[in-house]
Amino acid sequence: MTTRVRIVGTGLIGTSLGIALSRAGYAVSLSDPSPTAVALARDLGAGSVAAQGDPDAGEPDVVVVAAPPDVAGGVVADELAAWPRAVVTDVASVKVAVLEDVRSRGADLSRYAGSHPMAGRERSGAVAARGDLFDGRAWVVVPHEDSSPEAVAVVQELARAAGGTVSTMSPAEHDAAVAVVSHVPQLASSLVASRLRDLTDPAVSLSGQGIRDVTRIAASDPQLWTQILAGNAPAVRTVLAEMRDELAEVIAALDTLADGDGIGAREVLARIVSHGNAGHARIPGKHGAAPTAYTVVTVLVPDEPGELARLLHDVGDAGVNLEDLHLEHGLGQPFGLAEVSVLPSVAERLGEELQARGWRLHG
Amino acid sequence: MTTRVRIVGTGLIGTSLGIALSRAGYAVSLSDPSPTAVALARDLGAGSVAAQGDPDAGEPDVVVVAAPPDVAGGVVADELAAWPRAVVTDVASVKVAVLEDVRSRGADLSRYAGSHPMAGRERSGAVAARGDLFDGRAWVVVPHEDSSPEAVAVVQELARAAGGTVSTMSPAEHDAAVAVVSHVPQLASSLVASRLRDLTDPAVSLSGQGIRDVTRIAASDPQLWTQILAGNAPAVRTVLAEMRDELAEVIAALDTLADGDGIGAREVLARIVSHGNAGHARIPGKHGAAPTAYTVVTVLVPDEPGELARLLHDVGDAGVNLEDLHLEHGLGQPFGLAEVSVLPSVAERLGEELQARGWRLHG
Repeated sequence: MTTRVRIVGTGLIGTSLGIALSRAGYAVSLSDPSPTAVALARDLGAGSVAAQGDPDAGEPDVVVVAAPPDVAGGVVADELAAWPRAVVTDVASVKVAVLEDVRSRGADLSRYAGSHPMAGRERSGAVAARGDLFDGRAWVVVPHEDSSPEAVAVVQELARAAGGTVSTMSPAEHDAAVAVVSHVPQLASSLVASRLRDLTDPAVSLSGQGIRDVTRIAASDPQLWTQILAGNAPAVRTVLAEMRDELAEVIAALDTLADGDGIGAREVLARIVSHGNAGHARIPGKHGAAPTAYTVVTVLVPDEPGELARLLHDVGDAGVNLEDLHLEHGLGQPFGLAEVSVLPSVAERLGEELQARGWRLHG
Repeated sequence: MTTRVRIVGTGLIGTSLGIALSRAGYAVSLSDPSPTAVALARDLGAGSVAAQGDPDAGEPDVVVVAAPPDVAGGVVADELAAWPRAVVTDVASVKVAVLEDVRSRGADLSRYAGSHPMAGRERSGAVAARGDLFDGRAWVVVPHEDSSPEAVAVVQELARAAGGTVSTMSPAEHDAAVAVVSHVPQLASSLVASRLRDLTDPAVSLSGQGIRDVTRIAASDPQLWTQILAGNAPAVRTVLAEMRDELAEVIAALDTLADGDGIGAREVLARIVSHGNAGHARIPGKHGAAPTAYTVVTVLVPDEPGELARLLHDVGDAGVNLEDLHLEHGLGQPFGLAEVSVLPSVAERLGEELQARGWRLHG
């Protein structure tokens, strides 16, 4: 029997989910306070527009609340009340606050299990939607102590059908994890980027690849992030407090180097950078396994149409799979450096084959 | 007449510079406390090994001190004393401290002008050297009030000959600029990455592209960075103090959201993220001009040898120049997303041409 899904909120996530689940054979109905938004989502193939008050429409099996984080709890409670047999989930990127909100409204919590597809982007809105938004991305299903096993299973199945790589965590575990891997990095990126505002043009022009990488997500939407950060305030402040303490240690070390005897200061600086090494090494590699140490082959690529293609064609011709690719652009120069990451066992052969085809290597 | 350059210190920068200047027709002699290091640099084509106490070797026209930042000042002073007609520069990434050190040793400051080729990498040592390390990279020449115009001109010419894009700043301007665009981003990246150390594996596995970008430079060398940060302590602490104050504001806002009435808190969060937007927008685009808003065409690429090449070949075939390329890897999935940045005027046509060739687009 076809599973009937009702999606409430047709922004980027709701619309993308509608497209993905429609393709997977679910019967999707869409609802949004904005008639334009819901019609756009329908036109993008996300499902049919939910008929208001049409008794033939029937009760959905699952409701996905894809509303902004600050209203998600209220909408979840409303949907639980409106559909007394449906399982309800939400996709907000914070989970403790949403659960507390639902609980405070006296809703039937057994039919609710939260979830968090980790597929946010700097862009937003239905126009940016795509059916493969969740393909291969982490999708955390977040049950609580009162979620029924059936409700949890329904949400897990839906997450898998949408293409997500499903894991399960408690609300507190989830919020603590995303504080570290998502919310604090966002704030750090914003704080670093903010320092560029008052710099002179010549000073800004010294920006290299390091600050470009660190500040890429500083381009994110302030309104959305205000909701996310406010919604995860307890977990985020815990992590930020650790950062504040270490930052104070660094500043004290720099103070004694600038004005004092500098004793002990270098130990602090070396420890901070070294702890950063250790933390960075824990990030899983591309295939979700333990971090793989790839070997980088760096190649000079003329900045002309087709040149990068020719390089990667030659990499493919050598039978080598490219694991990662990082481009560095020369300032005002007609070429860039392509850093081709490959398995260590094939790096030397690749270098030789590329040189034989006329590429200039570096390093 | 061939310019004679003496390079003191044959690590990554010194050796790369030797290769670049030898190719540019300079007569390069190399010196390093380590006989192995200097022999390796010679074998890599960086120049000849400086003969110790050979009067026929003659005085160099220019000396480049490529020693670690914490000893650069002393070596500059020694070289100024040893070669009474040579211009001396250094390549340390901090400039006020080196100048003060040289001055405190009573050296002839008129023949000294500092410089900073911004070509540092996570890797180090002569083995990572390459002759085009400086091609198109910013190279800041950093004279002081006592530098003779001739000395400054010689250093500028050398920087250009090595391939750098030359600008000129005072030591204080330079140190303030790199504190913002390089040193504070490094610390922020390290502090964010450090938080991952104590996370559970399932929590770390939620790491997405955001934290990967923010923490890429957290893999940098602790010893080198201890020297750099210690050498620029006054400028770095000024920028960090601004960050500390804003961080305290954020924590106070989160405190009132978690435990208090939350009044005013969202304004703080929105302002921080919004100021990050404004700072990020100041980073120059690829060609060193004002930031260019490229349009991103996102394409699904199977994770197989040659597929990315085929895509970029098709991009080139369409006569479109790829301005930037960002890969996102699916967690445990056999494909990735290629975000192809192009000029807005050609994006639509490119999308159509790629679809006509069977590529799946998104967004």
